[in-house]
Amino acid sequence: MNSSIKENPLYPMANPEHIVFFGASNNFSSMGSLLLAATTDLGFEGPIYPVHRKEDEVQNLKAYRHVSDLPVIPDLAVIVLPTHVVCQTLEACGEFGIKSAVVVSGGFKEVGGEGIELEKKLAEIAEKYQIRILGPNCLGIANLYHKINTTPMPVDCDPGFIGLVSQSGSFVAQMYSYLDQYNLGFSTAFSVGNQLNVDIIDCMRYLGECPNTKVIALYIESLDRGEEFIKAAREITPHKPIVALYVGGSESGRRAAFSHTGSLSGPDDLYEGAFKQGGVIRAHTITELFDFCGILGSQPKPNGRNIAILTHSGGPGAIAADACGRLGLNLLQFTSETCENLREFIPHTGSVNNPVDLTFTRNPRDLLISIPEVLLEDTEVDILLIYLFMPEVMGIRGLIASGLSKEEAGSMYNQMMDEVGVLFKKLRKKTHKPIIGFTFRDLGEKLQQIFMDGGMPVFPSPERSVKSIRALVQYYEYQEKLQL
Amino acid sequence: MNSSIKENPLYPMANPEHIVFFGASNNFSSMGSLLLAATTDLGFEGPIYPVHRKEDEVQNLKAYRHVSDLPVIPDLAVIVLPTHVVCQTLEACGEFGIKSAVVVSGGFKEVGGEGIELEKKLAEIAEKYQIRILGPNCLGIANLYHKINTTPMPVDCDPGFIGLVSQSGSFVAQMYSYLDQYNLGFSTAFSVGNQLNVDIIDCMRYLGECPNTKVIALYIESLDRGEEFIKAAREITPHKPIVALYVGGSESGRRAAFSHTGSLSGPDDLYEGAFKQGGVIRAHTITELFDFCGILGSQPKPNGRNIAILTHSGGPGAIAADACGRLGLNLLQFTSETCENLREFIPHTGSVNNPVDLTFTRNPRDLLISIPEVLLEDTEVDILLIYLFMPEVMGIRGLIASGLSKEEAGSMYNQMMDEVGVLFKKLRKKTHKPIIGFTFRDLGEKLQQIFMDGGMPVFPSPERSVKSIRALVQYYEYQEKLQL
Repeated sequence: MNSSIKENPLYPMANPEHIVFFGASNNFSSMGSLLLAATTDLGFEGPIYPVHRKEDEVQNLKAYRHVSDLPVIPDLAVIVLPTHVVCQTLEACGEFGIKSAVVVSGGFKEVGGEGIELEKKLAEIAEKYQIRILGPNCLGIANLYHKINTTPMPVDCDPGFIGLVSQSGSFVAQMYSYLDQYNLGFSTAFSVGNQLNVDIIDCMRYLGECPNTKVIALYIESLDRGEEFIKAAREITPHKPIVALYVGGSESGRRAAFSHTGSLSGPDDLYEGAFKQGGVIRAHTITELFDFCGILGSQPKPNGRNIAILTHSGGPGAIAADACGRLGLNLLQFTSETCENLREFIPHTGSVNNPVDLTFTRNPRDLLISIPEVLLEDTEVDILLIYLFMPEVMGIRGLIASGLSKEEAGSMYNQMMDEVGVLFKKLRKKTHKPIIGFTFRDLGEKLQQIFMDGGMPVFPSPERSVKSIRALVQYYEYQEKLQL
Repeated sequence: MNSSIKENPLYPMANPEHIVFFGASNNFSSMGSLLLAATTDLGFEGPIYPVHRKEDEVQNLKAYRHVSDLPVIPDLAVIVLPTHVVCQTLEACGEFGIKSAVVVSGGFKEVGGEGIELEKKLAEIAEKYQIRILGPNCLGIANLYHKINTTPMPVDCDPGFIGLVSQSGSFVAQMYSYLDQYNLGFSTAFSVGNQLNVDIIDCMRYLGECPNTKVIALYIESLDRGEEFIKAAREITPHKPIVALYVGGSESGRRAAFSHTGSLSGPDDLYEGAFKQGGVIRAHTITELFDFCGILGSQPKPNGRNIAILTHSGGPGAIAADACGRLGLNLLQFTSETCENLREFIPHTGSVNNPVDLTFTRNPRDLLISIPEVLLEDTEVDILLIYLFMPEVMGIRGLIASGLSKEEAGSMYNQMMDEVGVLFKKLRKKTHKPIIGFTFRDLGEKLQQIFMDGGMPVFPSPERSVKSIRALVQYYEYQEKLQL
């Protein structure tokens, strides 16, 4: 960690040394118990102090009757209690000197009526004791590097480079396995809930400084401080991309968001404008949100919009080309030199024009390494898109046909793939151009995995890959415009 | 099979009793060998006669020196030979009395020059002997019910209800495992290649009559007989939906398609118009093509555009609602009666308004069966969309916490899920309304599987589910308009 992040007011909340936990018990059907279990599951290294009225031990941790009994003043309080006791609990925390709290409990502003009053009271207590509160009505924090996860779901992805700020706790807690499918993961994710005194912008600023975060994802149902948002975004986006999904753009979305967090969203074009001014890339779906993060966090700056497509099947090449056409990427016409260099690898039934079509592949290394090298060496090629389709069963069958036993073929296939993986990593290091893949096969297959491990995002459709490439191009184009 | 399909001129080609195979050998690195292996792998029940100049046995099948040596006149010849011997082989087939052929070999019209001449010669031979030819430059046929698969890829999906006609062989051969992820499969798929004397329209007509086909998918790079296409589509769509993907709409797509099959595609709006006139639903991506087929082949006619969304998480509910708003579906405001009926199941922190938000789920049966029942009983609800998120690990953890051992919990969880599956099948039978699901989890998980098995399509994002629902609605709206 560099020094600047430690000075950020949210640092103790996202990187607590010790936590006091209110609302967990030994009954695992309660929300509080699940949250505590998720954090201990992840392997939080500091002490956790459960506070419980009756139990001496909660989930094998020594429990305390009252916060004032604790041996130290914890950096963070996590409160998952019935609504009516939240204020008094926060007051007790404040008296004891605690300065950061995650309030998971709901029943405040979002339910209207009395809830609004209760939230005001909570704000007064926070103000009195100078406590920064994430929530209420949120799922708090998951900092995968610091091994804290105050959500009910166990983390089933590795720590990654995506910093998330979300007005929905679901998009923290329910996306771990989704991200893992794409070899992605969160660095730190914030569920901001009702944003009592920590809002989207505060969290964005934290993630802007966070060294584990290469790209920031925002899930927004409404923004209260528009001008400040643009200002913060303009400070961050020159060195770290921000991708935002805004869901209040339609009447139905607006109504659903209102009943969800009680905040009022505004016209879609207002948000569109704010994003543009801030250099923020807009995603229109959750899928796009994380696709765009995946490419922006892993790929270098492209020099332009010239794309080369490599395939061994005409149809997938054609739809990728069509997607490029529709989305404003330029399917480069190769120089005669590049065509000549390609001809060495391409049979006469194939095509050395873009999309390069190898047709029937005899040697996977041609498709996966040698031809990519030729294309990346062409100075006019800015971006390379590769279609991946090599079912393991076919590779193994070919080896068996060449005289190997089933076992030998299996291990030979794995060895060949590992070699391709090593070669691809070298290629990825050597070139300063984005390389992207797409496939209709399962991303869990060996071939896709070696490329994803080697730093190439692989998408399950050509359109998703091309849309993501456009987002990558747009980010750098925005930055150039904003610098003018 | 009904009698009408047997009279279709493509019937012997798609349902041959015996096949003669040219170009397969015992060398598995050749295309012809892979094609033969794929068909025998699938378990084709009739005799297959390989013709080979030297070998006495090919892949454990008795081989013949010449087609005229065969004991019967086969229904179908599959030809995977070098370009220069294709014509003489077809001539020999014609002389022997064979009336259907799949010509996989390329090097004809699609390569220009001499290839054009060669294709003309092929057409003359076909004309002379009255042979129907699929191809050349294609992958032929996969009729999963008849266990024939003339593609290089082993079939790894069950037979299903999607009939495909494709100008790219890849979208036959390379989509088996893709479809399997969604519990979908082909009935019969045609790769038409250069469409010498069997074109997209002929195959459409066949699939229109095919009793195993509930919905027809088209992958089109160009159409030669526009008027005839509209006529055929108008005959088929009143009783069977057609979904089409046209890829030549952009300049890049057009160029790629041309180099792929040598056919010239036309302006996008021409195709858009032809689809509308034919009542054909248009897909813009391969993903949409099969998503739309999945919903159209499995769901009943909706009465209108009123949708109810059921979730236990605000964020996913909000983005589904937003997608409905953007895509023209109506997020229904429930009657007070329905709200009252829902209140029995929904805690005060949840919402009985649309999207119905159960928040924290204690009893999965409420979410998955009881609440859907309430919503489907509301006569104003036309369509139900359910968010699925229940990681197995959480369910099992809850059961362990209630005192069961790990093994007991695992088997209890499976039993509970199976029970939900049975109940859902009953519900699916009882109601005549479409029920759709979405999730961000793996579709292979038990929960998603029981719903897919029960006849509910589950999509990996809310947008894909809502777009598919719109396609379903559109199909029936088109039909009403065309009948006027």
